[in-house]
Amino acid sequence: MKLKTSIEEIYAPVQSQLNQVDQAILDILTTSNPLSREVIEYFFSAKGKCLRPALCLLGASFSGKPDLMSKVIPIAGAFEVFHSATLIHDDIIDNSALRRGLPTVNVKWGSQVAVLVGDFLHDRALAAFFAADSGRLMKLFLNTACEVCDGEILEFREKNNTALSEALYTEIIDKKTASLFATCLEAGGILGELEERELAALREYGRNFGIAFQIVDDCLDLMGETNVFGKTLGADIGAGVLTLPLIRLIEILPLEKKKEIQAVFTASDNPEKISLLKKMIAENETVEYSLNKARALADAARGQLSVLKDVPARQSLGMLLDFVLERSR
Amino acid sequence: MKLKTSIEEIYAPVQSQLNQVDQAILDILTTSNPLSREVIEYFFSAKGKCLRPALCLLGASFSGKPDLMSKVIPIAGAFEVFHSATLIHDDIIDNSALRRGLPTVNVKWGSQVAVLVGDFLHDRALAAFFAADSGRLMKLFLNTACEVCDGEILEFREKNNTALSEALYTEIIDKKTASLFATCLEAGGILGELEERELAALREYGRNFGIAFQIVDDCLDLMGETNVFGKTLGADIGAGVLTLPLIRLIEILPLEKKKEIQAVFTASDNPEKISLLKKMIAENETVEYSLNKARALADAARGQLSVLKDVPARQSLGMLLDFVLERSR
Repeated sequence: MKLKTSIEEIYAPVQSQLNQVDQAILDILTTSNPLSREVIEYFFSAKGKCLRPALCLLGASFSGKPDLMSKVIPIAGAFEVFHSATLIHDDIIDNSALRRGLPTVNVKWGSQVAVLVGDFLHDRALAAFFAADSGRLMKLFLNTACEVCDGEILEFREKNNTALSEALYTEIIDKKTASLFATCLEAGGILGELEERELAALREYGRNFGIAFQIVDDCLDLMGETNVFGKTLGADIGAGVLTLPLIRLIEILPLEKKKEIQAVFTASDNPEKISLLKKMIAENETVEYSLNKARALADAARGQLSVLKDVPARQSLGMLLDFVLERSR
Repeated sequence: MKLKTSIEEIYAPVQSQLNQVDQAILDILTTSNPLSREVIEYFFSAKGKCLRPALCLLGASFSGKPDLMSKVIPIAGAFEVFHSATLIHDDIIDNSALRRGLPTVNVKWGSQVAVLVGDFLHDRALAAFFAADSGRLMKLFLNTACEVCDGEILEFREKNNTALSEALYTEIIDKKTASLFATCLEAGGILGELEERELAALREYGRNFGIAFQIVDDCLDLMGETNVFGKTLGADIGAGVLTLPLIRLIEILPLEKKKEIQAVFTASDNPEKISLLKKMIAENETVEYSLNKARALADAARGQLSVLKDVPARQSLGMLLDFVLERSR
């Protein structure tokens, strides 16, 4: 029995296509503009998990038609470019200093360049989508782009709102994170010419997986002492973003304690803020509560897999759920 | 003989459709997100010239088929939404305080909201385009979005470069400003089912008009004492952006004087900077030189009009050239 699911194992059914995605990304972002090129080379020098391209390729591989896969590669690349645009703008919004272990674009070149290069990546991703498919897939993608943005604006509006409900938190992460995962899978499925019920299952898997993924990600920001993910630890609290462990904490505590937490959270110059909140979160086990939510969502995602054909990609999607939950251990 | 061309007169052939563009804009931007709605209502409360929707409608009206016009209105609205997204991001880049006489979105809500709402408007504009036309028009528009962005990144890179050439300046404003004017006209023409040679003429008119428009706009930033345009005067110099009057000034002066100007321009804390540079620009008549360039471009644009049918829109496009040149008087 294996102790840990590896990302390589999950990606195995589509690894050969995934290896070609880097080139697809470079093709999408070809430019003679020296500043754009410099920022692009820098940003993509630190590789992410490439989860969105992998999901797109896995979705397509349910078709069982290897000859369809070549046309999926540029779309998988476009998803990564789109996601990168979002990250570059996110790092402005959250005023983040680190991304994948490197200084963010806004830190290195200033927020002005980050705005513009984010816009550039976003538009090139759209153009790549459109070049590949001007029908259903493009429509799906445009809807998702609007939804992601809507989720981010909601999140921003709710910053520092210590009365944020779990329901609205879930809506926000569904829009800003899960919608894109669902679209990656569904887009792959569309290119793989799957049946409607299979597309619906991929979409539903993606939504549940995505919300679970974001909850775990939010928990990781509040766990441990050092950060191995190359992000600034406690960044959410630092940026005034409330995530599930804190939302739950505020919800369950008596009024007096609630007020105390709210005061700590909204204090602008308390250097102990993050460690104080982490301590209260630990005492009240609200990370555990949040991870249970994530586990339930992972189960819901797993339930969709029976609709899909029993090909290697199905096992990958199952393992991916384990992988996300294991990240929190 | 009239002394001044009025914008009402120019817009007359399409005024009834233009009156419906405001509603089309609201339809494109419908949202239940309270923060987005607040920013959108604020931004559109100060009306711009609506030049891009007007150009799109004028382009379409060469068809002479009034029944085609109803489908042009949403596209005209989408152009204004797209342009608004660009303005909201521009005001972050240039750190502008005023837009159409009101505090900018970045001043009122912070640059974070400006990034996100700009993204939202941008994506909704694209979705509106795609809903109306998934073929040639969408392709044209996506290319233009990438080109506008490329122009802005080039402009940013050349900030504070006192050796910026007139050729590169022209390339920048062609990309960031003229390309969209050309696309508005061409898109209207495509919807109006014009012939290829007419579309080419509209595009060429748009390019030349657009470069002339931007040169005049850049000159206005350096002319006069008070500002009637609701923008921050001397904003370009303040933001380190070199425009034609200054580029020409640096080009024609002897080495000693050149160095003096470069020192003034790059000084970060000289309160006299703008007035000093304006004085040198006035002494060397480089605004006049720049306006002569704009006049020549307007003539080139006018030359394209003979390709087009002699309908009221043709007269409008002629008057528009006069109007832009008259703005500088």
